[in-house]
Amino acid sequence: MAKVIFIVMDGLGDRPVREFGEKTPLEKANTPNFDRFAANGVCGLMYTLGRGRTPGSDIAHLAIFGYDPAKYYTGRGPIEVRGLGIPLLTGDVALRGNFGTVDRCGIIIDRRAGRVRDVSEFASALDGTIIDGVTFVVKPGTAHRAGVVMRGPGLSARISDADPHVGGVAVRPPEPLDASAEARHTAKALSEFLERAHSVLSGLPINQNREQQGLPPANYLLVRGAGYYSNVPSIYERCGLRAACIAGGGLYKGIGAYLGMDLIVVPGATALPDTDVLAKFRAAVLALETHDFVFVHVKAADSLGEDGNFQGKSDFIERVDEAASVLAGLDDVLILVTGDHSTPCVLRKHSSDPVPVLVHGPGVRVDAVTSFGERACALGGLGHFSGLELMPQVLNLLGTSHLEGA
Amino acid sequence: MAKVIFIVMDGLGDRPVREFGEKTPLEKANTPNFDRFAANGVCGLMYTLGRGRTPGSDIAHLAIFGYDPAKYYTGRGPIEVRGLGIPLLTGDVALRGNFGTVDRCGIIIDRRAGRVRDVSEFASALDGTIIDGVTFVVKPGTAHRAGVVMRGPGLSARISDADPHVGGVAVRPPEPLDASAEARHTAKALSEFLERAHSVLSGLPINQNREQQGLPPANYLLVRGAGYYSNVPSIYERCGLRAACIAGGGLYKGIGAYLGMDLIVVPGATALPDTDVLAKFRAAVLALETHDFVFVHVKAADSLGEDGNFQGKSDFIERVDEAASVLAGLDDVLILVTGDHSTPCVLRKHSSDPVPVLVHGPGVRVDAVTSFGERACALGGLGHFSGLELMPQVLNLLGTSHLEGA
Repeated sequence: MAKVIFIVMDGLGDRPVREFGEKTPLEKANTPNFDRFAANGVCGLMYTLGRGRTPGSDIAHLAIFGYDPAKYYTGRGPIEVRGLGIPLLTGDVALRGNFGTVDRCGIIIDRRAGRVRDVSEFASALDGTIIDGVTFVVKPGTAHRAGVVMRGPGLSARISDADPHVGGVAVRPPEPLDASAEARHTAKALSEFLERAHSVLSGLPINQNREQQGLPPANYLLVRGAGYYSNVPSIYERCGLRAACIAGGGLYKGIGAYLGMDLIVVPGATALPDTDVLAKFRAAVLALETHDFVFVHVKAADSLGEDGNFQGKSDFIERVDEAASVLAGLDDVLILVTGDHSTPCVLRKHSSDPVPVLVHGPGVRVDAVTSFGERACALGGLGHFSGLELMPQVLNLLGTSHLEGA
Repeated sequence: MAKVIFIVMDGLGDRPVREFGEKTPLEKANTPNFDRFAANGVCGLMYTLGRGRTPGSDIAHLAIFGYDPAKYYTGRGPIEVRGLGIPLLTGDVALRGNFGTVDRCGIIIDRRAGRVRDVSEFASALDGTIIDGVTFVVKPGTAHRAGVVMRGPGLSARISDADPHVGGVAVRPPEPLDASAEARHTAKALSEFLERAHSVLSGLPINQNREQQGLPPANYLLVRGAGYYSNVPSIYERCGLRAACIAGGGLYKGIGAYLGMDLIVVPGATALPDTDVLAKFRAAVLALETHDFVFVHVKAADSLGEDGNFQGKSDFIERVDEAASVLAGLDDVLILVTGDHSTPCVLRKHSSDPVPVLVHGPGVRVDAVTSFGERACALGGLGHFSGLELMPQVLNLLGTSHLEGA
């Protein structure tokens, strides 16, 4: 069976840019490798969530890996928490959070506690706390970030964020979002935990040291994005593919872990424009020795789009294309290149403009498209389809599609 | 109103074949008649069940005739049984089966009783048996095959196959597949019937004669594919079209009968590569005098694909095209040519690669496609659509589409 390298350039799609003679950043970029894949492959256009629906990156990735977001997306918490390597059990409520700083009156004076670099000590002071029958698992994330899991019977994710998302205001206890006993129980236990965490954190010697050095103490845990976890089958369980994830950004590692992919750490993968794409693609080729399906995420096209930096986005796409030369000539490998959504520079945010898709490798009905771009792919042999329809087509090319009827 | 000849070449779609210079068997075939229909018609690409879903032929045909398989497919039994001319009533459970041979210990020694040629006498010995309020209708099929209908109150098709699908093992009584009283009642009645059938069959003089001649006795009825029948409206009831079916294969006759089509028997229609396609097409033209809609099924493209015989598949398609010359010049007739699914020679099994569709005749918006092939049709004026969307478009062309709203 063929193997798969599945490349997602975040926010790849765009709109015509006047300064580029009405080309998009992708169309403007010189991409000889992707063009060659397109010329010897089959192309199409993908509406990740369907026409006119604009996805966040979390939801977009679930859809393109074949997981219906309506069923498998319950909030950002479980995804981020899985990316931190925290296992989840059905019934858990997971949240992501920051260690921040509040003053004596409970006003947030720094949402990131002076962008504290390492929160391991703070997290371990809270990890394992039990309140009202709920065990709180607290693990450090990158920099000021943390993952929190509430574990116990009768929990609900129908609670408000405790993080007000801005500084200069009072912390707010989480509130139940519906009248169920579960939501009330969860909000109450979490409120008590956050109060107790504040008191524990305030008393830590490390925080007293920070205050003596004039640094804001990490004395409050601001949590948000509660999501209820319920048995998400892995890509292996669903498709029989041993899957790996190569990503710089925490969210994308989270997506990989959430779907049961092995996380492959690549030094130099930063999720920034300076990321070492070549190292990521080399790692992907290597991973084919142990895996059937390798997801490679490249982030900066999205961030540059959000900055309105069309030249930077186009240049970055050229860098990705250049690195893709190491993917040429692979035997019996499907190479899929797409984006999770568009981030038009003119909008500086996500949009529902469709994204180009190319599939190169054994079995495809090579079409007449000879360049990789939004408008070239609109005329490709795959036609226009939705994100949830992508993985079934990949499985069909692999010859592992399940027969219905007889 | 125009009439319709609806040609389905089973397993028509394919993937590029290296030996054909990366053309598919259809693209490789010289098909001047289909190409002329395409050039003067409108084309498209059809995903029978939707992208990435691979259909069996039974489910595929239901979809392309506009019958949602989720509602109208309950198992192979009812379709095969209808093809044998056995009427079905709502509440019936229908199964297909073989007359086979078991030894004294209940081990299957021949699943087809030496490929016995005619099972009429065996079937009539069992037909009409009543057990536990269930009447068993048993009718002969071709060669060793039979159709079985269970009729009575409170039946369910949620029972396991009594046919283990292999020889050399013991027969197994059907088991209920859920805890309902209906499933338990059905499994119990069927088990008793199979036991009684064994005893009746063993005692038949014709079987004693077979044993004396050293032939395996047809002493056991191996049944499978139970399906619950619930009022399937005919094509006439749904669309107002008097429909006919011309097919060599039993399953396809079954599809026709299941959807209320008149079965037209054409000598030489074998469902094999040697089938008399010309006779079938001539019969189709003749049938237009009495019918509005004539379904012509051609089987061998699928079987040759399953054999990996790309040359044979391409040659067979050329034979079908040649015969299609008798369809040229028909007045006021829509000619539709498609497949029910792809059977790529490289896979030797069904896949979900889309199939080409051409529609020629009055009212179509003739497009720029000038040849009938997978990739040519991908750029056709019908675009890409799913199997359930085909018949509504045919009815629209006929001008009989129902107006919604005002």
